[in-house]
Amino acid sequence: MKGNIKIVTIGGGSSYTPELIEGFIKRKDQLPIREIWLVDIEEGKEKLEIVGNLARRMVKAAGLDWEVHLTLDRREALKDADFVSTQFRVGLLEARIKDERIPLSHGVIGQETNGAGGMLKAFRTVPVILDIVEDMKELCPHAWLVNFTNPSGMVTEAVMRYGAWDKVVGLCNVPIICRKIAAGALKEKEEDLFFRFGGLNHFHWHRVWNKAGEEKTAEVIDKVYATEGGLKKAMQGMNSSGVRNIPDISFLPGQMRHLGIIPCMYHRYYYITDDMLKEELEAYEKGETRAEVVKRTEAELFELYKDPELNVKPPQLEKRGGAFYSDAACELITSIYNDKKTHMVVSTKNNGAISDLPDDVVVEVSSIITANGPVPISWGSFDSSTRGLLQLMKDMELTTIEAAVSGDYDAALQAFTLNPLVPSGRIAQTILDELLVAHKKHLPRFQAKIRELEAK
Amino acid sequence: MKGNIKIVTIGGGSSYTPELIEGFIKRKDQLPIREIWLVDIEEGKEKLEIVGNLARRMVKAAGLDWEVHLTLDRREALKDADFVSTQFRVGLLEARIKDERIPLSHGVIGQETNGAGGMLKAFRTVPVILDIVEDMKELCPHAWLVNFTNPSGMVTEAVMRYGAWDKVVGLCNVPIICRKIAAGALKEKEEDLFFRFGGLNHFHWHRVWNKAGEEKTAEVIDKVYATEGGLKKAMQGMNSSGVRNIPDISFLPGQMRHLGIIPCMYHRYYYITDDMLKEELEAYEKGETRAEVVKRTEAELFELYKDPELNVKPPQLEKRGGAFYSDAACELITSIYNDKKTHMVVSTKNNGAISDLPDDVVVEVSSIITANGPVPISWGSFDSSTRGLLQLMKDMELTTIEAAVSGDYDAALQAFTLNPLVPSGRIAQTILDELLVAHKKHLPRFQAKIRELEAK
Amino acid sequence: MKGNIKIVTIGGGSSYTPELIEGFIKRKDQLPIREIWLVDIEEGKEKLEIVGNLARRMVKAAGLDWEVHLTLDRREALKDADFVSTQFRVGLLEARIKDERIPLSHGVIGQETNGAGGMLKAFRTVPVILDIVEDMKELCPHAWLVNFTNPSGMVTEAVMRYGAWDKVVGLCNVPIICRKIAAGALKEKEEDLFFRFGGLNHFHWHRVWNKAGEEKTAEVIDKVYATEGGLKKAMQGMNSSGVRNIPDISFLPGQMRHLGIIPCMYHRYYYITDDMLKEELEAYEKGETRAEVVKRTEAELFELYKDPELNVKPPQLEKRGGAFYSDAACELITSIYNDKKTHMVVSTKNNGAISDLPDDVVVEVSSIITANGPVPISWGSFDSSTRGLLQLMKDMELTTIEAAVSGDYDAALQAFTLNPLVPSGRIAQTILDELLVAHKKHLPRFQAKIRELEAK
Amino acid sequence: MKGNIKIVTIGGGSSYTPELIEGFIKRKDQLPIREIWLVDIEEGKEKLEIVGNLARRMVKAAGLDWEVHLTLDRREALKDADFVSTQFRVGLLEARIKDERIPLSHGVIGQETNGAGGMLKAFRTVPVILDIVEDMKELCPHAWLVNFTNPSGMVTEAVMRYGAWDKVVGLCNVPIICRKIAAGALKEKEEDLFFRFGGLNHFHWHRVWNKAGEEKTAEVIDKVYATEGGLKKAMQGMNSSGVRNIPDISFLPGQMRHLGIIPCMYHRYYYITDDMLKEELEAYEKGETRAEVVKRTEAELFELYKDPELNVKPPQLEKRGGAFYSDAACELITSIYNDKKTHMVVSTKNNGAISDLPDDVVVEVSSIITANGPVPISWGSFDSSTRGLLQLMKDMELTTIEAAVSGDYDAALQAFTLNPLVPSGRIAQTILDELLVAHKKHLPRFQAKIRELEAK
Repeated sequence: MKGNIKIVTIGGGSSYTPELIEGFIKRKDQLPIREIWLVDIEEGKEKLEIVGNLARRMVKAAGLDWEVHLTLDRREALKDADFVSTQFRVGLLEARIKDERIPLSHGVIGQETNGAGGMLKAFRTVPVILDIVEDMKELCPHAWLVNFTNPSGMVTEAVMRYGAWDKVVGLCNVPIICRKIAAGALKEKEEDLFFRFGGLNHFHWHRVWNKAGEEKTAEVIDKVYATEGGLKKAMQGMNSSGVRNIPDISFLPGQMRHLGIIPCMYHRYYYITDDMLKEELEAYEKGETRAEVVKRTEAELFELYKDPELNVKPPQLEKRGGAFYSDAACELITSIYNDKKTHMVVSTKNNGAISDLPDDVVVEVSSIITANGPVPISWGSFDSSTRGLLQLMKDMELTTIEAAVSGDYDAALQAFTLNPLVPSGRIAQTILDELLVAHKKHLPRFQAKIRELEAK
Repeated sequence: MKGNIKIVTIGGGSSYTPELIEGFIKRKDQLPIREIWLVDIEEGKEKLEIVGNLARRMVKAAGLDWEVHLTLDRREALKDADFVSTQFRVGLLEARIKDERIPLSHGVIGQETNGAGGMLKAFRTVPVILDIVEDMKELCPHAWLVNFTNPSGMVTEAVMRYGAWDKVVGLCNVPIICRKIAAGALKEKEEDLFFRFGGLNHFHWHRVWNKAGEEKTAEVIDKVYATEGGLKKAMQGMNSSGVRNIPDISFLPGQMRHLGIIPCMYHRYYYITDDMLKEELEAYEKGETRAEVVKRTEAELFELYKDPELNVKPPQLEKRGGAFYSDAACELITSIYNDKKTHMVVSTKNNGAISDLPDDVVVEVSSIITANGPVPISWGSFDSSTRGLLQLMKDMELTTIEAAVSGDYDAALQAFTLNPLVPSGRIAQTILDELLVAHKKHLPRFQAKIRELEAK
Repeated sequence: MKGNIKIVTIGGGSSYTPELIEGFIKRKDQLPIREIWLVDIEEGKEKLEIVGNLARRMVKAAGLDWEVHLTLDRREALKDADFVSTQFRVGLLEARIKDERIPLSHGVIGQETNGAGGMLKAFRTVPVILDIVEDMKELCPHAWLVNFTNPSGMVTEAVMRYGAWDKVVGLCNVPIICRKIAAGALKEKEEDLFFRFGGLNHFHWHRVWNKAGEEKTAEVIDKVYATEGGLKKAMQGMNSSGVRNIPDISFLPGQMRHLGIIPCMYHRYYYITDDMLKEELEAYEKGETRAEVVKRTEAELFELYKDPELNVKPPQLEKRGGAFYSDAACELITSIYNDKKTHMVVSTKNNGAISDLPDDVVVEVSSIITANGPVPISWGSFDSSTRGLLQLMKDMELTTIEAAVSGDYDAALQAFTLNPLVPSGRIAQTILDELLVAHKKHLPRFQAKIRELEAK
Repeated sequence: MKGNIKIVTIGGGSSYTPELIEGFIKRKDQLPIREIWLVDIEEGKEKLEIVGNLARRMVKAAGLDWEVHLTLDRREALKDADFVSTQFRVGLLEARIKDERIPLSHGVIGQETNGAGGMLKAFRTVPVILDIVEDMKELCPHAWLVNFTNPSGMVTEAVMRYGAWDKVVGLCNVPIICRKIAAGALKEKEEDLFFRFGGLNHFHWHRVWNKAGEEKTAEVIDKVYATEGGLKKAMQGMNSSGVRNIPDISFLPGQMRHLGIIPCMYHRYYYITDDMLKEELEAYEKGETRAEVVKRTEAELFELYKDPELNVKPPQLEKRGGAFYSDAACELITSIYNDKKTHMVVSTKNNGAISDLPDDVVVEVSSIITANGPVPISWGSFDSSTRGLLQLMKDMELTTIEAAVSGDYDAALQAFTLNPLVPSGRIAQTILDELLVAHKKHLPRFQAKIRELEAK
């Protein structure tokens, strides 16, 4: 029987798309798809063709009758959509290279999700996602927006706060990796563990219990996070090559023990800033920042994708990093469609799940996925070793989004000042100014300031 | 294979016990029981024998090798227990009759769970449950306490707050009835609906969504709660005879519409106090208060239980009211034992689930039942049509428990003043004084005041 | 030198006006008045003439050159005003008689400020005050609104929340009486005591310290509130005849001791509801409800006011009740004008002063009066003997205002259900319906419902 | 007439003492002193003699009969004291030099109040202040503790939280300087302005209004904080030489405009970290860190103090920095003693004054000083440009105090990680380790860890 679901993927020309298609195919029995629309922009047309054709071959090889449409016309695609996933990058990987290299050129971590680079990415992305939301209100008012464009938490917050659109879920693969690490350390099957995650995108902590109800958090900390080399080993041990976006350096054991809850891998930027910076500067010197590596990997991937014989997701995609990302999106869509009550970690409205943050902000927490979207599981409150840092990060996010929406330079500077990854003062200003000018083309709301900076 | 679980039921001579045994038998494949201990006190010895023998016949008829022990020695029973369920009533049904009739003799609703009667029940019960907890700390420190002794929310709160024992869950059958009512009204299967409950024991509200993610709350309100006779019809329509404890009177349609969320049946005491009082006064005049009716029903039940041929739960038990109660306890125990992640509505620590109440108070909310106990699902915040009333009730509970623990008469009077079901002033004082004297035997902590009152 | 302040009093024909004028005269050195405008409506024209002429004689006798204008044209009066005080009663005392007698006819306390009567008064008053605010935005955008129209707290809340006008202060004489009672009980001069008040209008508590920093709260409770007859004695002992609006009945000593903080006189409605109701029903039977008594007193006062020889506030005004009210308004205006930093108890935005209530609601708290208005002094949090009751009252207020603004009958019924002074259920509905019909003329927003009720 | 107040100053040999004595003399009519006890330790004996004799000469020259006692016996001094002021430095200025130089030797700001240095100062000071509190409980249970030992906020928090002593007030001169700066910028008399301060010690913001009630905050920001060189000019313009502890560098104008509220001078460490570090490194290279400069200044001061002809506070003391500090202490004591209701900015329990922080933490806010101590004025909530940063700093303080009390190295490392002035990671650990070893003598609670570090 012909399916009835219409799925739209904005940024459809992404190298991730094969994983997404694979994810849908894997769930074909639960997800009666009729059409998949891959949307991209003019600059991404070639990639869209390549990856779109691969997608078609994959669907065909799976013996499915799904229509795969490729288009540059976003509005045509959105018409009557059921699910819209977003995985675009405004300015493409060239922009990410700037996001990472410009701060590093001043001896500062770039970090394309929560650092200076990530803030610029938010400035570029937020206006576009808000445009998409406006289109959705008109063309597919019942659709769910499944975002995995980074900074995923900020983008989700912007959609809810400024787009006034609540049918949005932010996704990330980091919690998935965290679960695998814990399961590996405990030598347990992942499905035999119960996890509770609380925090923000790329800035969350978790606790874990076994099937007997015993908390195993301290044991995981001890084996993985408070042991020199423990994390590296844990990640090697994983089936997948996992999160390649961040270098593999050990936390400080004493601080980990005091935490009492398990950080995510991105916490290394905040907890061992000096080592992370050192590693990134070395990569910078060699022209091997993560952005540059990814760019090369992507070029290779697209070469592979062109192969007309290829009709499955090539294993090399895992080297790209971001594994599990698209699969999580497929699982989320399937859970909403089937009201599965799956437990997933998503960015959604707090509603009291974390007592230390206002009800109306977006957090990344363990949630039950219903047909009406995610319902968070209560985390409770953090203690003083984490609470204030979390609250600061949320306010950094809110101020970044404020700047992204208003184009107010002073707000942007404030957000830079708040960010723990950016040293405050003239250096913050210098990096901000340089990034603004570099991204001029994709920052329509900051034009006046950029012209002023260029005139200097 | 011989099971390994030891279950202890305090108040084992209760007429409910056959439902409990039936519930365990139904779950025999998930719950490898070794021993069930039914504990009671001297005054309940005869009932314990009767119901205990029925329990043994039931177990035998089911072809199970479970040992069923009957004892008056609580400490012997508690030794190495895995689960302890509590369903006792200090002072037996005679005490309940006083709880209900003394307030009514002054024209005031008694309400043995949240009214004046319920507060006295808390005064009698809290010291006993705290004793049980002290025994558990010594004899079975890893056991879970599953409480369905009323007032279930207050008892659970007392155990956590004054007993410093977190492995406790409070249970009630009201949410189960509410679910059935909603399913009936929507002509949907219960398992196809998603519910979120928030509030306190016998004082909660809920919302409901269907399989397509559409909120059906307004439709349920419209059909059942804002329609004259709607609730009566809904409850007749239920398979079970359900909650017989409270009379069947309609809410005010306009107020229900404004609420926007669905009340529980007990809200009638607060929302249509006048009609409820009128009905109760009629019953009082005829000697047919709920306590008196239950007493007669129980006598009949125990006659039935004596029948040596009887080896199943007799259908007449449902007339007793409280259906589903024991079944819920069995399901809870099974879920904890098997880490089932079942969704149940239980009394547990708030932890932010309801933003309008402190993190550390006990609330009755939708929760996921894990091997480590319940984890609440976020409710979020209430609006002004419910928030303040909920907050008042919580503080009435806290003040009642404070009085129960301290035996402080002034605190007891304050609690009476706070309770919306008790008119404030001399009448509250009069009812309180009369109840204290009437329950003299079971209120060791209030002895000084009671002697003073008697001396008058 | 000619003054420069323009003061407008809406409801200028009130019998209180002479106290107001006296208050201004007393402060003539701090308050350089140029014009006083007394505004009233057509129905109040005669009273306006009488009291206006007395005001002129008073000003003249004081040797002042202030212009006293009498007008029915509110907009003319408001033009360029500096301070606008509001003391009007929509529907005049006839309406108050209905507010009090209709509930009493059903055996329910009327209470024209926070009871059923007060809610109807809010329904009539809120739309009018919001109209005044709209005029002020246009005609005197820098003026302060000093409200002492009851229910003073709700009116102030409505102005801030729905009028979006923050330059408003709500005033009441109850805290002033409370201070005098405490000073009398402690045999201290009022100015030697330090008070902290927290709560809502007619629903606040206070604590008191002496010059040595010792808290004297318990002593005041002991002497006045927890002693039979103590409050009566305390009020007789006062210089003024004080608050005549509420009968003089003793609190319950035990409950007072448990409170630990001092209630206001209006708390008797909530704490000893039965005695208050009894007393009110007796007055009702005799046609001597407070409204009726006041109506007669007022008639006598206006006879006195007509005397062309009278050029001071006649001492008989104190029998009217509400003493200190107008004086408080004069002191407030003087404090704002001179940035005096006076400590006063006013209705203003919470801003955290009471931790148990949201930041953005109006509370009645001790404040410092600056040229920019009141800044509250931190109260902190209440304990469980008061917190929930306070939170309920705030939500009752919010729901009442919601109904007043929207004319939504269901919201009105919800507000009645929430009010602890109104028994819930059909009786609440009956009283509400009867009051709506009785006040038909002054409830434009409820017209559709009223027509429906009349058609029955 | 002989006075009756006994004042004890712990750290009485401080160079500040003459200002304190001057402050008392200035207030002699309001403060009937009988005895002043200057207490110090063996190492400070010589200074105590010098400054104590100057104090005696000052008192005598003022024609007062106050007894000035010098002692090394703290318990003798504390007996029956009315006010105890604390201004000691554990480890003397030598310790401060380490606090500042060790971090700088790793390229990190030392900052002896809120930076790495300040945390070590807290580790040394908290156990001592808690000992003093224990003595006070026994010897002078009614006395007030007036603390101006830095880090003043943390010390006050430790006294309340771990000492369970609420009669403590923390003082600082920074708010006094801030007021003078604003008054100068606005060309207004300080007493004609109304200020509201909110935040933490050395980490607060303020707003200001003029006598007409107009907010002047933006104007002050514009003139002083968002203008290059504005702050320098403002501080030169001050009568006193003011706060010499921190270098004079301009804020970022854009960030200041976005703030909307006025930072304190210490915010430069957080807002323009790079420039501050640069300046401090230059001083470090030259052996002119603030600690070293102060040490020299002090030596000069004590030479002056020795002069037997000197009987007034020498003007050179102002160069020491910390002007107004002791005067503030005298004013505070006088205000408590006389129940003056003075407005002062002090460290005291939050109690809701700042909605974004828990009720029970210590904050530095505008307060009314009564005989019962400070009562905070409501600040309300911060917006996202400041809230999270404030919350982080509070948690850094709490974690620092936790470490100081427990001697837990992991907690200390966590506190270093949380501090925005300390780069996270191995460098934090290195600095912490080095500081612990360097301060070995004054860190009894960290001995085990220090031995471990030394063994490496």
